[in-house]
Amino acid sequence: MFLEVDYQFTPEIDPNRQAKIIAIGQTAGTWDTSFSHRETTLKSHLAEVGNIRTEATGHHIATIHFPLANIENDIPSLLTMIFGKYSMAGPAKVIAVRLPENYGKKPKLGITGIRQHLKIYDRPLIMAIFKPALGLTAEDHAAILKEVAFAGLDIIKDDEIMGDIETAPTLQRLKACRQILDQLKQQTGRTVLYATNVTGPNPLDMAKRLVQEGANALLFNALTYGFSALEQLTSDPEINVPIFAHPALAGALCAAPDHGFAYSVILGTFMAHSGTDAVLYPAHYGNLPFQATEEQKIRDFLRQKNVFPVPSAGIHPGIVPKVLADYGNDVILNAGTGIMDHPDNPASGVQAFFEALEKTTPNQPFDLETLPAGPLRRAVEKWGNQ
Amino acid sequence: MFLEVDYQFTPEIDPNRQAKIIAIGQTAGTWDTSFSHRETTLKSHLAEVGNIRTEATGHHIATIHFPLANIENDIPSLLTMIFGKYSMAGPAKVIAVRLPENYGKKPKLGITGIRQHLKIYDRPLIMAIFKPALGLTAEDHAAILKEVAFAGLDIIKDDEIMGDIETAPTLQRLKACRQILDQLKQQTGRTVLYATNVTGPNPLDMAKRLVQEGANALLFNALTYGFSALEQLTSDPEINVPIFAHPALAGALCAAPDHGFAYSVILGTFMAHSGTDAVLYPAHYGNLPFQATEEQKIRDFLRQKNVFPVPSAGIHPGIVPKVLADYGNDVILNAGTGIMDHPDNPASGVQAFFEALEKTTPNQPFDLETLPAGPLRRAVEKWGNQ
Repeated sequence: MFLEVDYQFTPEIDPNRQAKIIAIGQTAGTWDTSFSHRETTLKSHLAEVGNIRTEATGHHIATIHFPLANIENDIPSLLTMIFGKYSMAGPAKVIAVRLPENYGKKPKLGITGIRQHLKIYDRPLIMAIFKPALGLTAEDHAAILKEVAFAGLDIIKDDEIMGDIETAPTLQRLKACRQILDQLKQQTGRTVLYATNVTGPNPLDMAKRLVQEGANALLFNALTYGFSALEQLTSDPEINVPIFAHPALAGALCAAPDHGFAYSVILGTFMAHSGTDAVLYPAHYGNLPFQATEEQKIRDFLRQKNVFPVPSAGIHPGIVPKVLADYGNDVILNAGTGIMDHPDNPASGVQAFFEALEKTTPNQPFDLETLPAGPLRRAVEKWGNQ
Repeated sequence: MFLEVDYQFTPEIDPNRQAKIIAIGQTAGTWDTSFSHRETTLKSHLAEVGNIRTEATGHHIATIHFPLANIENDIPSLLTMIFGKYSMAGPAKVIAVRLPENYGKKPKLGITGIRQHLKIYDRPLIMAIFKPALGLTAEDHAAILKEVAFAGLDIIKDDEIMGDIETAPTLQRLKACRQILDQLKQQTGRTVLYATNVTGPNPLDMAKRLVQEGANALLFNALTYGFSALEQLTSDPEINVPIFAHPALAGALCAAPDHGFAYSVILGTFMAHSGTDAVLYPAHYGNLPFQATEEQKIRDFLRQKNVFPVPSAGIHPGIVPKVLADYGNDVILNAGTGIMDHPDNPASGVQAFFEALEKTTPNQPFDLETLPAGPLRRAVEKWGNQ
C-alpha cells in the first residue's frame, strides 16, 4: 500500500538525483552490512521513484511512491515523511499527493450532514462574517446576528482573528448569540449555524466546552494551530457539530512558486482527509493572487470526500450567476463585506444574496437596466455584476 | 503593550500601502458610523504602521506594531494575526518578530536543567540519531543504544521519521532502550537521554504515557503537528523531561526567498517562546542551503530564553574546532552519520567526538600529520577536518 507524491523542481535541478535522495532520505535511509539480517524489513520501508518528466516550462516533476506502513494514518506523520527534512534541502514544491480513499478521517457531517441539519438541499448556503473583526462586545455580536439571522442567513462565523480576548470572551459571545439562535428557532423554525472560533491553549477542551454551551458549529484555524489539533477536533465524538477549517497561514506554505506545497494539496487533499466538514479557501473572484485551476482542484478534492467547499474573498451578490456556473449548488458562499457592507444594512446584504439566487441564470450577469429596485439592485450598483 | 513584526516586500510592491492593509486588515478591520459608539475599543485593537525602509537590494521592510490584547499569549493566535489571511495576499516575508521577554512559555528545563540532569556543565553535549531510520526492531535499537551509551554518548534521539509503526512500536522501543539506560546508570552512574519521538492522534496523551513508561526525553516534530500540540506538551506539568523540537517542514515555511518566514523567526523566535527545551535546526556546515546569519540568530534567540541550540547536518568529529569557535560550549552537537557511519563502528564515532573535544583548540583544524592513531584520526580520514 503506497501513497504518491509529485514533487516539482526548478529547471536547473537534476530530478533523478533528487528523487533518489527523497526516496531513501525520507524513509529508511542507508545501511551497511551489519544490518543485512534486516534487509527485507528495511527495504519494505523504502520509497520508490516513479515517473519523472519535464514540463514545457523546464520544470521537472518526479513522482515518489511511499509505503503507507511508514506513517500513522494522519496528516502530521505524512507531512514529516514526504517533506519534513527535505523541505530544507533546496527548491522543491509538493504539487500533488494521491492518498487512498480511506486514508485519514471522514467528516462526521460534511455536505450531506450540514444540509440535513439546515434542511436546505437545493441551493448554495450563504455565510456571513462578524465585522468589525475585533472590538465589539458580545452584545454587539448578538445584535448583528439578530439582524442577519432574521433576514434569512444560513451560517455566520467569527472572523478568524477573533479569539478568546478580553473585550469579548468567546463564551460570552456564544452565550449572547445562542439566545438569538434560540429565538430564531422558536419564531421561525429555522436553524442558523454560528461557527464559533476555537482558540486557546487546548483547542479540544475549548471545543468541547463550546459544544456543551450550545455552539452549533465551530471555526478552526487549522494551519496556525496545526493539523494535529484539527484532527483531535474532528475525531472526538463529543464534537458533533460541523467544523469549518479556516486557511489562515496557507500562503506561508503555498504561495511561493518553487517551495512548499500547492494550495490544492494543503487546502484540498489534506483538509479532505482530515475529517473537517467544510473548508474555507480564497476564491479567484477576489483580489488574492489565486489560480482558478488550484481553486477547482480544491473544490473537487473536498467534494469527493463530502467536505463542503467554502470559497471566500470577492463574494458579493452580483457575482452569484458566475459562482453558480463555476460551482453549482454544493458550495457555501462566504461573504464578508459582501453582506456586512451592503449600502443599506447587513440584512439587505443577506436579502440581496437570496434575491440573486432566485433571479439567477447561471453565467448570465445581472443587468442593471432590468433589475427592479431592492437589495440586489443596490448591491449590484455598489459592487458590479461580475 | 505591542509586538513588532518586520515584513519584507519585493521591490515592485508599495510597502506603505501594504503596511496599511496589514495594520487594518489583520486586526479590527474597517467600520462605519453605526459602530462609532465603540470607536475607542475598536481603535485599541488596530495595529500601527512603524518604520518603513528600502534595502540596497530594492526590497522594502515595513515594521508593524500589533496590540498584544488581540491575541492569547501563544504562537498559534500570533500566527493568525500577523500572517493568517495576509499570507495569501501576494509576496511578503516575515523576517523578524520582536516579542516581550515574557510572551508565551519558558522551558521547564532548558540549557540549565538539561545540564543539571546530566551533570555536565563545561562542554557541548553530544547527540546521536538511531540509524537506519525505519526497519529495525526494538531490540536492534537497544543494541545500538548499548554500544553508543557505554561509549560515552550524552543523548540519542529517534529519527524524526520514526513513529509508532508496526515494525517497532514506540512503547516497545522505549521499553527495550530503557533497560539499557538503567544498566548504564547502575554500572557507571551516568545518565544518557533518549529523546523518544512523540507521534499519534493525541501527542499530549502519548507524551504522558511515554514519561510514565520511563522516557527521560522527548522528540517532537513541532511544525508538522503544529505549535498548538507543542505548547500542550511544554505546558503540561506531567511532562517533566526535556522536549527536543525537530524542524521538519521548516523549509516549507521558510525556504522561499519572498514568501513565508525567515528561518530565524520560526526556529528561533517562535520556538524560543514555545516552552520547548531544545531546538534542532540545520547547521550551515552541512549541504543544506542555510545562511550562517540565520543560524546565528536562531542560536542567539534560543539561548536568550535558556533553550538549547542543537545544530544538525554536517556535524562530524573533524568539524569540532570550528563548531566550538562558532558556538562555544552551550550547544548540543547532533551527529547522524557523523557517529553511526564512523569507519570502525558507532562506539568509535562517539569516542572520536570526545577525543575531538579534548584535543580541540577552537578554530584550529586538526592536522592529520600529527593526529595519533585512534577514533578521531579515523573520522578525520573519512570526513576531513572542516
